[in-house]
Amino acid sequence: MKLLVINPNTTASMTQAIDDVAQRISRPETRVVTVQPDSGPASIQGFLDIARSLDGILTIADQHKDADATVVACFDDTGLDALRCIMDGPVIGIGESSFHAASMIACRFSVVTTLSRSIVGITDNLAKYGLVTRCSSIRASEVPVLALESDPDAARARIEAEISGALKNDGAEAIVLGCSGMASFTDSLTAKFGVPVIDGISSAVAMAEALVSVGLKTSKIGAYASENTGISLVERAIVDA
Amino acid sequence: MKLLVINPNTTASMTQAIDDVAQRISRPETRVVTVQPDSGPASIQGFLDIARSLDGILTIADQHKDADATVVACFDDTGLDALRCIMDGPVIGIGESSFHAASMIACRFSVVTTLSRSIVGITDNLAKYGLVTRCSSIRASEVPVLALESDPDAARARIEAEISGALKNDGAEAIVLGCSGMASFTDSLTAKFGVPVIDGISSAVAMAEALVSVGLKTSKIGAYASENTGISLVERAIVDA
Amino acid sequence: MKLLVINPNTTASMTQAIDDVAQRISRPETRVVTVQPDSGPASIQGFLDIARSLDGILTIADQHKDADATVVACFDDTGLDALRCIMDGPVIGIGESSFHAASMIACRFSVVTTLSRSIVGITDNLAKYGLVTRCSSIRASEVPVLALESDPDAARARIEAEISGALKNDGAEAIVLGCSGMASFTDSLTAKFGVPVIDGISSAVAMAEALVSVGLKTSKIGAYASENTGISLVERAIVDA
Amino acid sequence: MKLLVINPNTTASMTQAIDDVAQRISRPETRVVTVQPDSGPASIQGFLDIARSLDGILTIADQHKDADATVVACFDDTGLDALRCIMDGPVIGIGESSFHAASMIACRFSVVTTLSRSIVGITDNLAKYGLVTRCSSIRASEVPVLALESDPDAARARIEAEISGALKNDGAEAIVLGCSGMASFTDSLTAKFGVPVIDGISSAVAMAEALVSVGLKTSKIGAYASENTGISLVERAIVDA
Amino acid sequence: MKLLVINPNTTASMTQAIDDVAQRISRPETRVVTVQPDSGPASIQGFLDIARSLDGILTIADQHKDADATVVACFDDTGLDALRCIMDGPVIGIGESSFHAASMIACRFSVVTTLSRSIVGITDNLAKYGLVTRCSSIRASEVPVLALESDPDAARARIEAEISGALKNDGAEAIVLGCSGMASFTDSLTAKFGVPVIDGISSAVAMAEALVSVGLKTSKIGAYASENTGISLVERAIVDA
Amino acid sequence: MKLLVINPNTTASMTQAIDDVAQRISRPETRVVTVQPDSGPASIQGFLDIARSLDGILTIADQHKDADATVVACFDDTGLDALRCIMDGPVIGIGESSFHAASMIACRFSVVTTLSRSIVGITDNLAKYGLVTRCSSIRASEVPVLALESDPDAARARIEAEISGALKNDGAEAIVLGCSGMASFTDSLTAKFGVPVIDGISSAVAMAEALVSVGLKTSKIGAYASENTGISLVERAIVDA
Repeated sequence: MKLLVINPNTTASMTQAIDDVAQRISRPETRVVTVQPDSGPASIQGFLDIARSLDGILTIADQHKDADATVVACFDDTGLDALRCIMDGPVIGIGESSFHAASMIACRFSVVTTLSRSIVGITDNLAKYGLVTRCSSIRASEVPVLALESDPDAARARIEAEISGALKNDGAEAIVLGCSGMASFTDSLTAKFGVPVIDGISSAVAMAEALVSVGLKTSKIGAYASENTGISLVERAIVDA
Repeated sequence: MKLLVINPNTTASMTQAIDDVAQRISRPETRVVTVQPDSGPASIQGFLDIARSLDGILTIADQHKDADATVVACFDDTGLDALRCIMDGPVIGIGESSFHAASMIACRFSVVTTLSRSIVGITDNLAKYGLVTRCSSIRASEVPVLALESDPDAARARIEAEISGALKNDGAEAIVLGCSGMASFTDSLTAKFGVPVIDGISSAVAMAEALVSVGLKTSKIGAYASENTGISLVERAIVDA
Repeated sequence: MKLLVINPNTTASMTQAIDDVAQRISRPETRVVTVQPDSGPASIQGFLDIARSLDGILTIADQHKDADATVVACFDDTGLDALRCIMDGPVIGIGESSFHAASMIACRFSVVTTLSRSIVGITDNLAKYGLVTRCSSIRASEVPVLALESDPDAARARIEAEISGALKNDGAEAIVLGCSGMASFTDSLTAKFGVPVIDGISSAVAMAEALVSVGLKTSKIGAYASENTGISLVERAIVDA
Repeated sequence: MKLLVINPNTTASMTQAIDDVAQRISRPETRVVTVQPDSGPASIQGFLDIARSLDGILTIADQHKDADATVVACFDDTGLDALRCIMDGPVIGIGESSFHAASMIACRFSVVTTLSRSIVGITDNLAKYGLVTRCSSIRASEVPVLALESDPDAARARIEAEISGALKNDGAEAIVLGCSGMASFTDSLTAKFGVPVIDGISSAVAMAEALVSVGLKTSKIGAYASENTGISLVERAIVDA
Repeated sequence: MKLLVINPNTTASMTQAIDDVAQRISRPETRVVTVQPDSGPASIQGFLDIARSLDGILTIADQHKDADATVVACFDDTGLDALRCIMDGPVIGIGESSFHAASMIACRFSVVTTLSRSIVGITDNLAKYGLVTRCSSIRASEVPVLALESDPDAARARIEAEISGALKNDGAEAIVLGCSGMASFTDSLTAKFGVPVIDGISSAVAMAEALVSVGLKTSKIGAYASENTGISLVERAIVDA
Repeated sequence: MKLLVINPNTTASMTQAIDDVAQRISRPETRVVTVQPDSGPASIQGFLDIARSLDGILTIADQHKDADATVVACFDDTGLDALRCIMDGPVIGIGESSFHAASMIACRFSVVTTLSRSIVGITDNLAKYGLVTRCSSIRASEVPVLALESDPDAARARIEAEISGALKNDGAEAIVLGCSGMASFTDSLTAKFGVPVIDGISSAVAMAEALVSVGLKTSKIGAYASENTGISLVERAIVDA
């Protein structure tokens, strides 16, 4: 299978890091193709960056319609709904897949993300997916996305402080890392805290492979209808009658 | 005051019709400027059209930063969150303003929209705004946006059928028209059914003027922070201490 | 238009202060008539005061049925549902209008109110209006209503402490002042904290004017039916068939 | 114990009927005192009747402060919160007690009430009590309150039709009768449909006795504080420290 | 009436203590029969203990099918749904009855339970019953069930600390004791804190008696159908048509 | 990896059918071990069957503690929480995994299950998992579990009727088959209706493999703590300080 992994930002080193994780975690028979937009924000921090990255993301999708599955490697799940209208195979966001995975191994999970300005967007996503009651807290480390690469030690210290707080005070039983740039910390944080720590890239790749392996594709009736097949349900009902 | 009204689609006749309503409903001292993107979808029907219209919308916002308030004249409230990061004054979506207005004059309202593929997106918006429990039903007339202009009589019949159903079966006490292209039907539908029928363009213009008149602007801390002022709350807390 | 502003308590100095705000914020063509009951509680603090003020409020409404719109100038939105059964034009509560206004300029707002015994009632109102998820916190300053006038400096200090806490700890992006007696602090608090601070009287007056300007009235089918027109929907359905 | 039963309307035959049920269902050692206001609406149908009945209800409460428990015999639970600020013992609404009782003997219950204009108020109450998810439907028989007495056979036929619909279509496992005037139908409806049919007067009297028997009274900190003991929690915290 | 009280654990001293409370609180004409399983966990702390206690609980129910009502004397309401399929009379859990009782005498209640590992299960129950919004907090005293007997003074100190915290910080207006082993503390905690403190055994016994006194039994259509009468609603609809 | 698949009922032909699906869908390197309890209900239909099957399920788990992952092959997700306290690897219910899978390929899904008496339990599970808003409807085919095998043609016709209804009337975009015994219909129903049809066994096996492949195990702090490691969070906090 061809697995398209889209990094919505234009920072090449992040695209490379995302590709490394996806290549490592994917099955041998999966061909991972990781791409980034030609232009757009260098990192996705908040509603405006999300909106400005969409054009590049949709262009990528149009160029890779043959992909069997797609992963959106930004914790905001940028463009998820629109991509599902374009692609036939499953489209999985790393935020979304992290929440679903966490819900199956823990009663409650906390998210540790980058800036506090992202908390509302993550909350909105959780509510939309339905999983908001499973989330014990969303904590901002106040580490900007690009600082995860430029000063990883300081970033790690801030992230650890929030994980510790979530476990002690919020009732968290698992931790979701709220940025694709935190993936390299996953194993050591798991070891340090003795609880499941969930990286979105890994979980999204594994979920995408799982859905493909059981033959599931994106539904093409209703809200994810592509442009050409989108006759209304009323028409369909008339046709079927 | 300068009121920017953005029609997110590229159909000039709709832009003209929107402008007509906004000019008519606005106060004498308001200067309405209605614009459409240079390129993008001819109508906004579903997640993909929304995503494809964003680039044009953001370009418009960048060109009209001096607006005192902004109205997004598409019932999906396309790009609302991103626009609030750009503009200083209030940014009001016609879907959003319709829901708020309806909530203040009726216990429950129903939405009559165009295609059923839009129902999920409207539901998601209602949930995000918080007003989902106030909505008695969302009914699709299965009239495509552009057919509202090309065959208004047929469209009107379909819309009336759904209004009637909402009043008789769903407990609706007011009707929200779920597309800016339905604005011209507002007065006659109000007269026919004897219940409040809410047009989004009118209510958004009036809400925008109301917020400006009491001096309210978009909050610039948190999720709507613009790029330059977006220091984190942690930093702010440190500064303030 | 005639705008009826009801102060549900019997403290004349508060009625005067409310009238001052309403006169100042209203449009030139609006005729503001601010009234208070002949008898009833001196301030509205909790469920018992609300119940005891209703008789006076309804009497006022019966005397001013010609009003084009009505504002209830108590943050508990005292008697709102009953008034909507009496009046034809929109009836707007200052709590309600504050929540709606805040929701259009900020993702999350906090309420700073008087006594903690009011928190449950405000929460119930938010849940009923549907906006409970938009509210980041309700904080009591523990300043009784009448102390806002008698010792404004002490009151202001308590209020500022809670605003500061809401911004630092609760994720608030805007502040709603939870008592009509706090209106005079609005501008200076906005200046001090650099975030939108919302006064209910102003926002209710502006909302009422906005709804009237677009021709919206209170729905008279269903729960707000007046006594004479209240045939049941079943009967209506039969009549219409 | 003295059990005060308040009929909020001024129809003496209903007060008598309510008293009959309460006398029959109460324990031998309970002294039932059933009263109605001197003036006010003849029946409680909608928000305006509720508001207009409050003055009379509060006067009754002030005259019977020695009651060990109080039952409000109107399905809207008229004045419940205010009465709890006055009375020391438990105050139980017949709507509320029906919902609680139904929740302990069935997974889902439906309410069959009088007019459709009451549905929103009942829904609001269910949401406030927390039990809205336990309610499978609220169905209006479109029988006005006073018609329950004047034409009981027609009323009964309408009520049976709605019960049948709730059991067949809505997933109801028990039926709550949504008006005190329906109490006399309880036993025969239970026999006819073979499911629990819950009368509010009976369940409220039994619940009130149960709470008194275990020594529980209305909490007097927080929202139900009476006027004299209502120091704020902040003060209390200071005192306790 | 015969009231079956099931202690789901196998600690005889707890069974005795539960019986003492039930005998004391029950009406003179009630015959209380308190039993424990022959084998199973010594205390119920978490999901695994709950599952392991079910076999013993169901065996007890099969032996006491003549009971007019049943109380499950474990705060997790162990086996409640299954027991309702076996027994004809009401089956009341002590957690459930505490939440319902608290909701009728206070706007918000907090639960003080044993170990933090029980918090999720209690939260799930509250959500299922519908009462989660009435609960201001669930606080763990971190006192294991059996330590309530072995070191009551230390247990009491821990419990008092959490009650104090709930009243000062969480908005609690009443306290629910989250373990049947805490029943002996009820009266003294009520006296000390001046707020309603609710013991589950007492409230469950009183609720069970109340439901029996008004003739209510467990619904036998739908989810609580016993094995022999469980024809589907579709069949029933056909039969009734 | 060793994948334990538990059929909670004692019908050997169902265990064989479940094993067939699991063997077929699993990866080559996965060793599937499908087992059923020695005694217990022949099918799981409702709360009582669930409770009676738990003893057998826990015995199986104790005998297969070396499994790397576990699948519970009953749509009620029987014993899921208790099993997670026993097993180290992920434990996945087929109901749960179906809901999560459906949520990633469709905006709304409907469940078509066996008897209507199961609807409440499925609804409770959806609410507990958080996914209730993603579910457009739960429809009972009124086909008992064992009739799926004994009369598959009649069963299939009933199931198709409900799928058709869900797509036409409820807004479903994908269908979840609500019983492990329906697995053999999956492919042909997908082909017939042109929408994703989700079989729980397949999705659960794939999800379990996915979670193991990314190294995720069940959290052992909090509610899923096993018996020996269950020190309280308070103790942990003290140790860590």
